[in-house]
Amino acid sequence: MKPIQVGLLGIGTVGSGVFNVLARNQEEIQRRAGRGIAITMVADLDVERAKNAVGEGVDVVSDARAVIANPNIDIVIELIGGYGIAKQLVMEAIAAGKHVVTANKALLAVHGSEIFAAASAKGVMVAFEAAVAGGIPIIKALREGLTANRIQWLAGIINGTTNFILSEMRDKGLDFDAALKDAQRLGYAEADPTFDIEGVDAAHKVTIMSAIAFGIPVQFDKAYIEGITKLAAQDIKYAEQLGYRIKLLGVSKRVDKGIELRVHPSLVPAKRLIANVEGAMNAVVVHGDAVGTTLYYGKGAGSEPTASAVIADLVDITRLHTADPHHRVPHLAFQPGTLQDAMGDLPVLPMDEVVTSYYLRLRVADQAGVLARVTGLLAQHGISVDAMLQREAEDVGGEGSTQTDLIILTHDAREGTVNAVLAELQALPTVLAPIVRIRKEELN
Amino acid sequence: MKPIQVGLLGIGTVGSGVFNVLARNQEEIQRRAGRGIAITMVADLDVERAKNAVGEGVDVVSDARAVIANPNIDIVIELIGGYGIAKQLVMEAIAAGKHVVTANKALLAVHGSEIFAAASAKGVMVAFEAAVAGGIPIIKALREGLTANRIQWLAGIINGTTNFILSEMRDKGLDFDAALKDAQRLGYAEADPTFDIEGVDAAHKVTIMSAIAFGIPVQFDKAYIEGITKLAAQDIKYAEQLGYRIKLLGVSKRVDKGIELRVHPSLVPAKRLIANVEGAMNAVVVHGDAVGTTLYYGKGAGSEPTASAVIADLVDITRLHTADPHHRVPHLAFQPGTLQDAMGDLPVLPMDEVVTSYYLRLRVADQAGVLARVTGLLAQHGISVDAMLQREAEDVGGEGSTQTDLIILTHDAREGTVNAVLAELQALPTVLAPIVRIRKEELN
Repeated sequence: MKPIQVGLLGIGTVGSGVFNVLARNQEEIQRRAGRGIAITMVADLDVERAKNAVGEGVDVVSDARAVIANPNIDIVIELIGGYGIAKQLVMEAIAAGKHVVTANKALLAVHGSEIFAAASAKGVMVAFEAAVAGGIPIIKALREGLTANRIQWLAGIINGTTNFILSEMRDKGLDFDAALKDAQRLGYAEADPTFDIEGVDAAHKVTIMSAIAFGIPVQFDKAYIEGITKLAAQDIKYAEQLGYRIKLLGVSKRVDKGIELRVHPSLVPAKRLIANVEGAMNAVVVHGDAVGTTLYYGKGAGSEPTASAVIADLVDITRLHTADPHHRVPHLAFQPGTLQDAMGDLPVLPMDEVVTSYYLRLRVADQAGVLARVTGLLAQHGISVDAMLQREAEDVGGEGSTQTDLIILTHDAREGTVNAVLAELQALPTVLAPIVRIRKEELN
Repeated sequence: MKPIQVGLLGIGTVGSGVFNVLARNQEEIQRRAGRGIAITMVADLDVERAKNAVGEGVDVVSDARAVIANPNIDIVIELIGGYGIAKQLVMEAIAAGKHVVTANKALLAVHGSEIFAAASAKGVMVAFEAAVAGGIPIIKALREGLTANRIQWLAGIINGTTNFILSEMRDKGLDFDAALKDAQRLGYAEADPTFDIEGVDAAHKVTIMSAIAFGIPVQFDKAYIEGITKLAAQDIKYAEQLGYRIKLLGVSKRVDKGIELRVHPSLVPAKRLIANVEGAMNAVVVHGDAVGTTLYYGKGAGSEPTASAVIADLVDITRLHTADPHHRVPHLAFQPGTLQDAMGDLPVLPMDEVVTSYYLRLRVADQAGVLARVTGLLAQHGISVDAMLQREAEDVGGEGSTQTDLIILTHDAREGTVNAVLAELQALPTVLAPIVRIRKEELN
């Protein structure tokens, strides 16, 4: 049988990886897939660079629509990125009856519902293992490996740039700005790192995982997003003294009222495996009612790790493209038409409704009664204290100017309640600086 | 559509878990699978216990063959275990055109080739996610998630009993016998723990993973197997001082000459995630040429974690049972007929041919020249030393009786060469006790 023919839209870092790995391991991949898989056409605006990347024998064009229009092409790989032309091309490829493989998390997190509906109507597959956590087969694990489970929560380090920065901050005692510069110098952060450091990239990914885990539509607009730009080296150090590491986590939980969907820095107990995921590595923890806690770890980005995921999708499609749609795995793990109603049954909760625990750092005047006032206010709002750390007082000069850091770990509390009490605490004359608040997840 | 009907052979701990999880999560599982999945018939020699486990509405029989003979049953779950009657029943179920789900690693590691050949000939699936590492979807990861890769090696903590014992030995400074008693008292080890502590269970599992990773037949008889019964608390302590933990690993590597397939205690750098897998938990590290190093972690045994894997297989079969065989994933990841020749192309290497590094502990007389003699002999055989630790000499009483422990970490060396040099070292009059040799894996 002749190889299944694949068209590639956009041949940058990941696209070259896909081409190279497919070429290098073609014999082994064919023995697995039962059929050869060949990239026969590539579209890229930089035709010369594309030709250099793929060599002779591959049709290189500048117009992506020429790939979609080619009747010999069975599968289109979209590696352009973004919501603009990428969305148009994916929709056109589906309309043309092509199966699609994409690494575009932004596109799926925002427009996934429309794209998957079009694909289902047309009877084609849209595969996206590469969209979350690079080479780690986490989409497959969630969608197929854990089907027995009522999944209760998942939490992931799903952005390598921020994990690299946090590792640098901890290892070298750096503040955020210095660590970011290191990351940029070493190629772990882009010149404009906004999407990474503000948590947007992680939010795209956790949105996709959340949909698959809980059987809800993708709802990026409902995600709470907080990045790492305000983290201080000091808090990483205090957390360490309390037995915790600080990681940027994408978290999604099923609770009685609905689904929590959030990205923010979190304290994680240092003894958890995920707390020990360092540098640009990724890991996702998934907790199911039957299986308990499982963890998946690997490279979350890079040319060949991402290519590994793209090609796994190609193999799946090669196996199933002539099968009936009901033989295939549903795009969002649950059969279309059985997703939970996002408004009624299983809404994504506003951040005020989230229940978690907290790390608080208060810069307070070292006076009699301050501690009692702070803990009294917490108690008054029903927030109980799990652990406390008070630093030795420092004299910062001036009259009545002895100050100290008061670090409090709370038990579980509603975010809305915590916001209210933080406003009251902040208004106390003895609280001398903006209160630092970092959420804490036990993940056990 | 009416539910797909499943017959269960053997309803002990895992069988009850499968029944309970299927019942509890039936709505969610059906939304994923696109069809209900119901256990409608159970065979167990203890009919009363089985009836208690499943309640009304399920046909309970003592004769497993009655399940196989039932034309309404589409899938048979074999949870009897062992090579005897379990093998007969699996072969009969296949012959009767039933799909089979099994957690029986011993059966597959030894008779897998015969079973998969029969299943392929009959056009049925034999699924076995539960056979390796319990609830961790490692078979799916290896067989589908990493299809792009030329897999280079894998290493796993795949026996919870021995990992629990090793964790106890380390945490409490216990020797093996004491830790085993603890494990038995706490239910982590069976009354007859031989299969676990001698490494046989881990060897079954690594044999299956090796076949899937490298595209070779299952060859349990070629596996090198060494258990943990000879480990001393002392070596765990010395390893710790050198920055290592000792774990029972199942290891399989692709090298130039063939495949390494082995189970034995191993030093692993303490900073690796897998070195921090404690208690009865399991983890598998897989290294592919494209994806790099990935890790999969979770509960390796127990009623519901194992049930999670069994039910994931049921869902896969429910999806694919009416599909053409080429739409299904091959049993051993590679298409039948494309497995590597076990004798020629890719043989499992004898242990003497394995290349790894070593921890050696020598009890030596504290005399001038001993160290030079030992290191000289190693050098003479081309074995280079990576690190060394010499303890303070102890006076054990008697003339010339000062002794010391000499701990050596070697660089990579051929096992056969190491055996030869160990024989020479052991024969030295200044070497006062049997030399301890533990292999070491870097796993990076």
